[in-house]
Amino acid sequence: MDTFTVKAFGAESNTADLAEMNIERREVTANDIEIEILYCGVCHSDLHTARNDWGGSKYPSVPGHEIIGKITKVGSEVSKFKVGDLAGVGCIVDSCGHCNSCKHDLEQYCENGFTGTYNGNDKHLGGHTFGGYSQKVVVDAGHVLKIPANLDLAAVAPLLCAGITTWSPLRHWNVGAGSKVAVVGLGGLGHMAIKLAKGLGAEVTLFSRTPGKTEDAKKLGADHVIISTDEEQMNSVKGKFDLIIDTVPYDHDVNPYITTLTINGTHVLVGFIGKMEDSLFTPPMIMGRKSVAGSVIGGIAETQEMLDFCGEHNIVSEIEIIKMQDINEAYERMLKSDVRYRFVIDMKSL
Amino acid sequence: MDTFTVKAFGAESNTADLAEMNIERREVTANDIEIEILYCGVCHSDLHTARNDWGGSKYPSVPGHEIIGKITKVGSEVSKFKVGDLAGVGCIVDSCGHCNSCKHDLEQYCENGFTGTYNGNDKHLGGHTFGGYSQKVVVDAGHVLKIPANLDLAAVAPLLCAGITTWSPLRHWNVGAGSKVAVVGLGGLGHMAIKLAKGLGAEVTLFSRTPGKTEDAKKLGADHVIISTDEEQMNSVKGKFDLIIDTVPYDHDVNPYITTLTINGTHVLVGFIGKMEDSLFTPPMIMGRKSVAGSVIGGIAETQEMLDFCGEHNIVSEIEIIKMQDINEAYERMLKSDVRYRFVIDMKSL
Repeated sequence: MDTFTVKAFGAESNTADLAEMNIERREVTANDIEIEILYCGVCHSDLHTARNDWGGSKYPSVPGHEIIGKITKVGSEVSKFKVGDLAGVGCIVDSCGHCNSCKHDLEQYCENGFTGTYNGNDKHLGGHTFGGYSQKVVVDAGHVLKIPANLDLAAVAPLLCAGITTWSPLRHWNVGAGSKVAVVGLGGLGHMAIKLAKGLGAEVTLFSRTPGKTEDAKKLGADHVIISTDEEQMNSVKGKFDLIIDTVPYDHDVNPYITTLTINGTHVLVGFIGKMEDSLFTPPMIMGRKSVAGSVIGGIAETQEMLDFCGEHNIVSEIEIIKMQDINEAYERMLKSDVRYRFVIDMKSL
Repeated sequence: MDTFTVKAFGAESNTADLAEMNIERREVTANDIEIEILYCGVCHSDLHTARNDWGGSKYPSVPGHEIIGKITKVGSEVSKFKVGDLAGVGCIVDSCGHCNSCKHDLEQYCENGFTGTYNGNDKHLGGHTFGGYSQKVVVDAGHVLKIPANLDLAAVAPLLCAGITTWSPLRHWNVGAGSKVAVVGLGGLGHMAIKLAKGLGAEVTLFSRTPGKTEDAKKLGADHVIISTDEEQMNSVKGKFDLIIDTVPYDHDVNPYITTLTINGTHVLVGFIGKMEDSLFTPPMIMGRKSVAGSVIGGIAETQEMLDFCGEHNIVSEIEIIKMQDINEAYERMLKSDVRYRFVIDMKSL
């Protein structure tokens, strides 16, 4: 298969800083699209993969799955896009297309395993996939998104992971006008959860451990902030929420939040991948038909729906633009939660 | 308020055997029904309440919430029932009627707390309610069920708790033809879960720790039995089930079952009230939008729906009839799981 070389930024090992390197991209095949990358958001998964925090990382590791760019080539069979169009690529660049999940537009739950934008098994070139910290990417057209023209392009990038990861549970659990939604954690995902839930018409509450985030949360659209370490405040929201979007990426006790769910309410985990130390206390669940669930990103059609919704409602992420060369420092700042609320790389800098 | 005295069987303390005693019932008021009790099923909750295993038991404690009888008096405002009709009473004898749950026929989740058939707060006489281990009971007509005439009356009694407790999640999670349902635990609840899921058209699998229950499970309608301690068998059902009804009444690890859920599948706990020692491992939940939920009994309308369904499909519980005087021995046998699958008291013996 014909390939071409592009500049990228990646890690040669789990202990190496990210640095400039060359990688190969395939020449577009009939159903492919070649995209010149303009912006790439920086997700916590990028850092965890580059450093092999979850195991299974392949090197060199080129992260990045919040990709916004301009189309530079389209394959002979592609009719939905043309050269010069804006385009987005999120966390999924391929899926089997024929399993029950794919048939229902749930590529994120592809029974044969979707191909991650980075660290996935590259079906075309062999080896593993390389993400958006690079000049160009070549992606199957069925996994490329259209980008609303009215939005700030850099600030759209995080919608492709942080946005869809919170949008999908909001939609799956039927959030709309009159819904009461709570968000746990105010980071890249949490701030998008607030904006999107508010956009859908919900009454939105942020759970925060400290009072310092109240003003910011309200600016983002939260109606209320509940300090989760304050027993009185927690008691004041017992039985209130239809849906809790829990974006916290580390181990934490979900039991106090479960008591704040209404009958049939759901606490959905989108951030923490691992074993929870605090085990479930079942009485509030049983006596109120409450659920604890998980959810991961979203399907391609759902991502397009979310982007279109954001275009109509003027919703984008709050971002800080960095240069590609600042990525290692940005990772250190992310570990200290020193970002409001998402870094986005201006790829011109590469 | 006028009362009358009936014979009952109850415990004077948490360490006392159950013995014959007299209790007071109110005379029927305008909306009440008086029922001569013919049969009363024996639920694990009876034993736990008599012995104060969950705390909060009030004495004397007269258990019993799987009540079948014949109507002997009706209040002046009661039009749905007449003297001589068969009638059933389950776990709920009163509810507020005006909260959001009650307005949606979810009396089991009454926001003001439903009145349990025993050990509840008696709104009429003060003190606490007495259950079905007695000659007669007086109940608000809105909480009384009609009993299909074609079924064996003694074997209908357990439907009023074991039946509805498994029916409600089957209906809430939309089980029907083509659904794949698994049941954990083959006791009073588990055997009803198999029968009802099968009746609804599902493909039904029993999870069992030991091979000894295979033949019985298949007689009850199970299509498959999976030995949960056999890794190969567990692997063979990975990602299979839409709904798992977990009837196990003691602490156990739910993580192995979660991996057998399909995308969007739910593991619903109906048996274990407490803190689960084994904590949740979130990756299978997140990567498949799987849920762990709880559910308790069911509403009055839903219980009637279940009884009507059982009438149409000739579904009853598998029972062993005992005399009232054998109740203490029956409790000991229940603790050893030595019952297939529900004791029912013939109240003539009292």
